[in-house]
Amino acid sequence: MENLKRIETGDAESGTAGLMRRIGRAARKCAHELSLASTEAKNYALRSAAAAIRARSEDILAANARDIAAAKPSGATGAFLDRLALDVSRIEAVASGLEAIAALPDPVGRLLARFERPNGLIIERVATPLGVVGVIYESRPAVTADAGALCLKAGNAVILRGGSESFHSSRAIHACLVAGLIEARLSADAIALVPVTDRAAVGEMLSGLAGNLDVIVPRGGKALVARVQAEARVPVFAHLEGIVHVFVDRDADLDKAKTILFNAKLRRTGICGAAETLLVDRACAPTQLAPFVKMLLDAGCAVRGDEATRAVDPRVTPATDEDWSTEYLDAIISVRVVDGLVEAIRHIETYGSHHTDCIITENQERAERFLREVDSAIVIHNASTQFADGGEFGFGAEIGIATGRMHARGPVGLEQLTSFKYRVHGTGQIRP
Amino acid sequence: MENLKRIETGDAESGTAGLMRRIGRAARKCAHELSLASTEAKNYALRSAAAAIRARSEDILAANARDIAAAKPSGATGAFLDRLALDVSRIEAVASGLEAIAALPDPVGRLLARFERPNGLIIERVATPLGVVGVIYESRPAVTADAGALCLKAGNAVILRGGSESFHSSRAIHACLVAGLIEARLSADAIALVPVTDRAAVGEMLSGLAGNLDVIVPRGGKALVARVQAEARVPVFAHLEGIVHVFVDRDADLDKAKTILFNAKLRRTGICGAAETLLVDRACAPTQLAPFVKMLLDAGCAVRGDEATRAVDPRVTPATDEDWSTEYLDAIISVRVVDGLVEAIRHIETYGSHHTDCIITENQERAERFLREVDSAIVIHNASTQFADGGEFGFGAEIGIATGRMHARGPVGLEQLTSFKYRVHGTGQIRP
Repeated sequence: MENLKRIETGDAESGTAGLMRRIGRAARKCAHELSLASTEAKNYALRSAAAAIRARSEDILAANARDIAAAKPSGATGAFLDRLALDVSRIEAVASGLEAIAALPDPVGRLLARFERPNGLIIERVATPLGVVGVIYESRPAVTADAGALCLKAGNAVILRGGSESFHSSRAIHACLVAGLIEARLSADAIALVPVTDRAAVGEMLSGLAGNLDVIVPRGGKALVARVQAEARVPVFAHLEGIVHVFVDRDADLDKAKTILFNAKLRRTGICGAAETLLVDRACAPTQLAPFVKMLLDAGCAVRGDEATRAVDPRVTPATDEDWSTEYLDAIISVRVVDGLVEAIRHIETYGSHHTDCIITENQERAERFLREVDSAIVIHNASTQFADGGEFGFGAEIGIATGRMHARGPVGLEQLTSFKYRVHGTGQIRP
Repeated sequence: MENLKRIETGDAESGTAGLMRRIGRAARKCAHELSLASTEAKNYALRSAAAAIRARSEDILAANARDIAAAKPSGATGAFLDRLALDVSRIEAVASGLEAIAALPDPVGRLLARFERPNGLIIERVATPLGVVGVIYESRPAVTADAGALCLKAGNAVILRGGSESFHSSRAIHACLVAGLIEARLSADAIALVPVTDRAAVGEMLSGLAGNLDVIVPRGGKALVARVQAEARVPVFAHLEGIVHVFVDRDADLDKAKTILFNAKLRRTGICGAAETLLVDRACAPTQLAPFVKMLLDAGCAVRGDEATRAVDPRVTPATDEDWSTEYLDAIISVRVVDGLVEAIRHIETYGSHHTDCIITENQERAERFLREVDSAIVIHNASTQFADGGEFGFGAEIGIATGRMHARGPVGLEQLTSFKYRVHGTGQIRP
């Protein structure tokens, strides 16, 4: 019947394109309602969704087993399967993650600024939702809950497009989010999951769903982010890579530097805040370079170095120019000796990715200069680069880290998922 | 020599495309230097530019006379010529405008937030420049100075592309800005004016100059803004149109309503904050509609109304559905009687442009509801919509008004021309 009508009216909205357009329109339609939803309703939806996830954990595990069974014969790697797999404790983490987001302050309606004009007008800048957020992610089922919940809490409608290998798991989790929305009498369209694995759905999202998508957040590997950044016709909150530097200044405390460097590189090597390059001031290299290199090598970290670095240990292999712009996400580090702060900053400007960079020094002046001149989303003095994380920043949760300069930069938490408007309070003022 | 080299290396960067790419690269190259420029240097450049404009006013007037002489035979309208024309007092206004921007606080380096984490990390969010701003404007020579100065003060490099009819005037003004930059020992590339009138230059800017343009601000008529919004591959700060509503609630004070309405519609009819539609609550229409309509008609404003409005005065012509979504920018208003606040909000949601909307009422509860539920950049209670202006908001100056929700919304002043970064101060913290 509906198909018939479409043919009659010449409406070509069939197939994935038509489906995505309809999802976009439905999201836009409920975005306004959602922008006005009370904090209580949003939190009730999140807590109800958490309860549904606990209650339906058997269903979710069964759906996940289907995904795993399908992924294994296709030659999926162990790391891939690990990201895809759910178990009882991971499901509990998903549920409690929803409750944690419910417990965060509502970012909508915050008074961001207030000023009174000489004519008596009172002008307030107040946070409002962004509108419709699209999240494109790989096969990590938990992102369905995380991303959906963060967008909902910030008053946004969200369209989720998960990796096809996690299709059944994501659907099962999504069903719990929808149950929460219905329980709270919010529109079930507020959190949409693209119900097909067709890759054309991603293309439609990148085109902006005819104006019904305000921003896209890609979550996944470099290939995904690169495609989204290259093709999206709407703003993107993302970072392509984290080529994170630790610069050890001539006035660094050796023990502090070793502790921070070890943590920055090796606490976890696969996260975007992990250090990839160590820069050592030539002035302290004679005493400090060897201990750093030895510590890293002894801990099982491969070291690729410039000539000066190779001179301190035969286990160091030569770094090529490509190494300076490589995000290893592994137990590998590139090491270079630089002529002080200025050359360090120049190296970071040339090879870095504007994500997170760190200086280790006891010299306050040079620390300030580094923090000022290095043009990265996060610049750190005397602490591990692995603090580059919304949770560690106290944002409660993050949907990702952005390296762009527009709207969001650094960890993207609830605040960055909002916009604002001006409310002007008058008593009859007119403009002369 | 340079051409030869290009042929030898197979570099196809010739013509307008090559020129624009080179301008983009030069802008990006100096953006970093500019982001670190001192407040004093930036202000000195602006004041020196103002002095140059006064000193060279004869040259600027001569250049302007060339533009006017070229425009007249091509059938330019009076309004167009008025926007294009400079005289001694307009040149003085340009110069003092530069000094006014020099006098504004520097938006770069402002501490936007500061929080201490339980582990002792101190995290600051600090304002930084956006990078490279592109401004595409029509033949208003003064915009060259305004837009260039605002971007410079916010630490951005800027690429200006003015209307071809103001080419010589804009060049003469631009030369003064460059003189100011040189005087202050800042890079002359910080404020670039596209030196060709070729329309392909705009297309190159819309494509983002190979990643060397961070945001585009179009300033001009609807056709220009529509093209930029449709084609730009980078973020755009703009509003397509201002379909501005005044809603007179049942509890409005009649005199206050008349005063505000008159000012909102007729103070200046050609600005984006001018009212285009009057909505009157049916509950007060019997007493208030006739006085509003008579006042507007008597002042020479054409009134296009729904049936109820036409009933109060024979001079009212019928409003079509198109009227509700028309920005007249003229002494014309559309008038409709609505069933209270809810229908007023629905009308604004259906036909509005999310720019500026106003409620007139003495009922605080309904005022709050209007301010909350109307999803426009600026929502006003009991004051003229013509306050929708960066100057009136106390921003000192504005580069335009944005209706998008990303990064900037409402008047775009110096603050909105900045981004931010996080500075993390540690004492050796590592992540557990």
